[in-house]
Amino acid sequence: MVCQLIKMLHTTFVICSFAAMIYNDTIVALATPAGAGAIAVIRLSGEKAIEIASELFFSVSEKDLALQKTHTVHLGHIKDGNRVLDEVLATLFKDPNSYTGENVVEFSCHGSSFIQQEIIQLCLRKGCRMASAGEFTLRAFLNGKMDLSQAESVADLIASDSEASHQLAIQQMRGGFSSEIQRLREELLNFASLIELELDFSEEDVEFADREAFQKLISKITLVLKRLIDSFATGNVLKNGIPVAIVGEPNVGKSTLLNALLNEERAIVSDIAGTTRDSIEDEISIGGIGFRFIDTAGIRDTVDVIEGMGIKKTFEKIEQAQVVVFLVDSVQSTIDSQAMEGLKVEVEKIKNRFPQKQLVVIANKVDQLSDAQADELKLAIDNLQLISAKTGQGVEELKTTLLNFVNTGALRNNETIVTNSRHYDALLKALEEIIKVQEGIDMGLSGDLMAIDIRQALYHFGEITGEITNDDLLGNIFANFCIGK
Amino acid sequence: MVCQLIKMLHTTFVICSFAAMIYNDTIVALATPAGAGAIAVIRLSGEKAIEIASELFFSVSEKDLALQKTHTVHLGHIKDGNRVLDEVLATLFKDPNSYTGENVVEFSCHGSSFIQQEIIQLCLRKGCRMASAGEFTLRAFLNGKMDLSQAESVADLIASDSEASHQLAIQQMRGGFSSEIQRLREELLNFASLIELELDFSEEDVEFADREAFQKLISKITLVLKRLIDSFATGNVLKNGIPVAIVGEPNVGKSTLLNALLNEERAIVSDIAGTTRDSIEDEISIGGIGFRFIDTAGIRDTVDVIEGMGIKKTFEKIEQAQVVVFLVDSVQSTIDSQAMEGLKVEVEKIKNRFPQKQLVVIANKVDQLSDAQADELKLAIDNLQLISAKTGQGVEELKTTLLNFVNTGALRNNETIVTNSRHYDALLKALEEIIKVQEGIDMGLSGDLMAIDIRQALYHFGEITGEITNDDLLGNIFANFCIGK
Repeated sequence: MVCQLIKMLHTTFVICSFAAMIYNDTIVALATPAGAGAIAVIRLSGEKAIEIASELFFSVSEKDLALQKTHTVHLGHIKDGNRVLDEVLATLFKDPNSYTGENVVEFSCHGSSFIQQEIIQLCLRKGCRMASAGEFTLRAFLNGKMDLSQAESVADLIASDSEASHQLAIQQMRGGFSSEIQRLREELLNFASLIELELDFSEEDVEFADREAFQKLISKITLVLKRLIDSFATGNVLKNGIPVAIVGEPNVGKSTLLNALLNEERAIVSDIAGTTRDSIEDEISIGGIGFRFIDTAGIRDTVDVIEGMGIKKTFEKIEQAQVVVFLVDSVQSTIDSQAMEGLKVEVEKIKNRFPQKQLVVIANKVDQLSDAQADELKLAIDNLQLISAKTGQGVEELKTTLLNFVNTGALRNNETIVTNSRHYDALLKALEEIIKVQEGIDMGLSGDLMAIDIRQALYHFGEITGEITNDDLLGNIFANFCIGK
Repeated sequence: MVCQLIKMLHTTFVICSFAAMIYNDTIVALATPAGAGAIAVIRLSGEKAIEIASELFFSVSEKDLALQKTHTVHLGHIKDGNRVLDEVLATLFKDPNSYTGENVVEFSCHGSSFIQQEIIQLCLRKGCRMASAGEFTLRAFLNGKMDLSQAESVADLIASDSEASHQLAIQQMRGGFSSEIQRLREELLNFASLIELELDFSEEDVEFADREAFQKLISKITLVLKRLIDSFATGNVLKNGIPVAIVGEPNVGKSTLLNALLNEERAIVSDIAGTTRDSIEDEISIGGIGFRFIDTAGIRDTVDVIEGMGIKKTFEKIEQAQVVVFLVDSVQSTIDSQAMEGLKVEVEKIKNRFPQKQLVVIANKVDQLSDAQADELKLAIDNLQLISAKTGQGVEELKTTLLNFVNTGALRNNETIVTNSRHYDALLKALEEIIKVQEGIDMGLSGDLMAIDIRQALYHFGEITGEITNDDLLGNIFANFCIGK
């Protein structure tokens, strides 16, 4: 059994040595966004990064780049033979004091796409290889600069577009999550070794592992795992934004409402192509939490044929949402008693159709209403919110309502929140094994049988931090990165 | 007169001191292109750049940023109070050893738009001001880190998208052009002082300025100015690409031809929005020179109503071009003698309509032709080029033809080429004044009258390098820059 533990440790080594084979070359990539800007950064990493950089970079003070200290910046020219490509700053990071843990040179050049391409092409001719997506971070992980969950958070950090998603990624990058897992893993590993040691002395019937302390540890791990697993629902919502379906006719004031919400906050609108203000989805950050507003215009018209095929798509969209905002025109709704009755019917229909969703009914254009009309509306519909997107009246209350749907307690308390579905998966599997271990304890199972479950649990913990991994998994994780990171 | 010279020098000082008033604050901007990428660089410049950076940056080794050496890089966190915004690298450049000549701090952060915004907002709260377009380079100019023509070349460099435009910008940035102007200006200034000195001793009738040497200098300046002015035509073409109008029916193989040209070269297609392969203009780099292909489809159909209003637009486009490529389908043109005659008529019409343009007639799809048909076509049309865009036959010859239209001699010989219309304008004006000076010499004009023209010429030289400038001019120049440069 000890052998198996050792074998398990070996797996990690084998992976590292395999990886070493693929990463002893020097890679190059543009690290800044594509396109023209004031400056662009081209990053080289690998054993020969400084050597290659020295062949094309000529310091204005004629200093030899290779002889300079780590973390220093040098002004010079990049030359292709006699042809000057650009005046650049070269920043030197020497193994192991760099992002990747290898020698790294960063060229900060003028931000023309032409120059970027020329310099990268020159680096390739001088012996670099084009970096694949996430390869710099992969190398950082393989060189032990960060664990796997930290490496994954780098991609999350770059993709973060609200305060909450950003905070979660920063927390994960700083190792909050993995150190918690790491600690549990070590305690468990400790017991595992003792229990497996007992097996070697099985004829003597000794107990190295204190069963009482072990029970305590298993209970603790169970609690922590359950808490982390529960946090995923919140984490997912915080990371990806809360989907809110807006139901309402085109001219009830949806755009004005979104603008009102937007103008109040320092606007953080997603930069991702296709999510502009004109498109179907609008992402707005309210109180640091992202809300994705999904337009489902047309439901009111078709609410009478609620089972019809035509509005299937609208209902599919509502299914994806966590919150349904039903926006109505308060003026139209108070025009006569028939309109008011119609509104009541519609609200009931939505409530019955989507009992799981959190529904907010908002009557807009309340600035055009008399007080009596407003009261009448409020009386007719439970929990109706009166707003005027135009004047801003009621917008603050709406924001509070929306924020109340989010459990931000964990975020505020700086608790560890799981946001990554791979981690969630591993935690679920770990919990499954820990439950088996608990059952083993309860049943007085022998050490060798329990050891199998413990090892499985350890395996799943290791998957999160990257102690246990394989190339397919790494390939999947880093393929989601952008090139240059 | 000496006083006036001194006054002239004073003008420069007055401008600098005015500028000093507006730039003693600390500016901040994103220096890398907008959008998400692996990393982004945020640049602070100004007296308090390091002080402000120290308030928000916390080095992992707890070093005080202000006490670190210039040109060093430090790993740490940017914190807004207790909230960690990001893990960043901070690079320090101390006055005067920076791009702007001021204290500069560059934060290299994770490339999320959200993080970029958060850090910039934090810098603003800590006392920075948002940089206006080109303000970093403006400060570099005002602090004497570069002259005006060098500063202008920075924007050209960022916009460069072919080898030629890039080489011109690099040459100008390295001071090739302005040092030539500077040298002439100094020699002229020297004579001007001597001549103006004579005026103070006018009663004694002395000649401090050697008239023979002065004549020589004026002749030399005239020659240089004429050469520089002449170079503008080439420079403009090299910088902006050579406009080539393609005339031909939609299905004669224009796209295939462009692709064939594109595939041969390492493609440099303009990144500017709207110039994609599908749009009206296509920019292709051939032999390092940019060619802008302007589609003018439809001319052949309408060639019989050549004076009609409908094709006015097509002819306007041809007017903008320097080269007209008339692309025909060789199969269609050799179908019968009537088609062949029609082709001849059309070629003649274009020749007569645009006698100033360089015309290339290309018969495409020659791979589908018999040798006899090919010979017949060649006999019918002078200088006809036979190509097959599909097989690549004749594409190399077409490239040679196109390149022959460009006078690249000056570029190859590394001569100074004027590319900036502001410089061109100043050179024309300077030449005008120098001619007046020459006339003055010829007429034996008195020193005081000649001094006025010399001073005017000096003024125009100074406009190029920025010794003489004003805020409107600076505003215009730097407004064309991107923010962050």
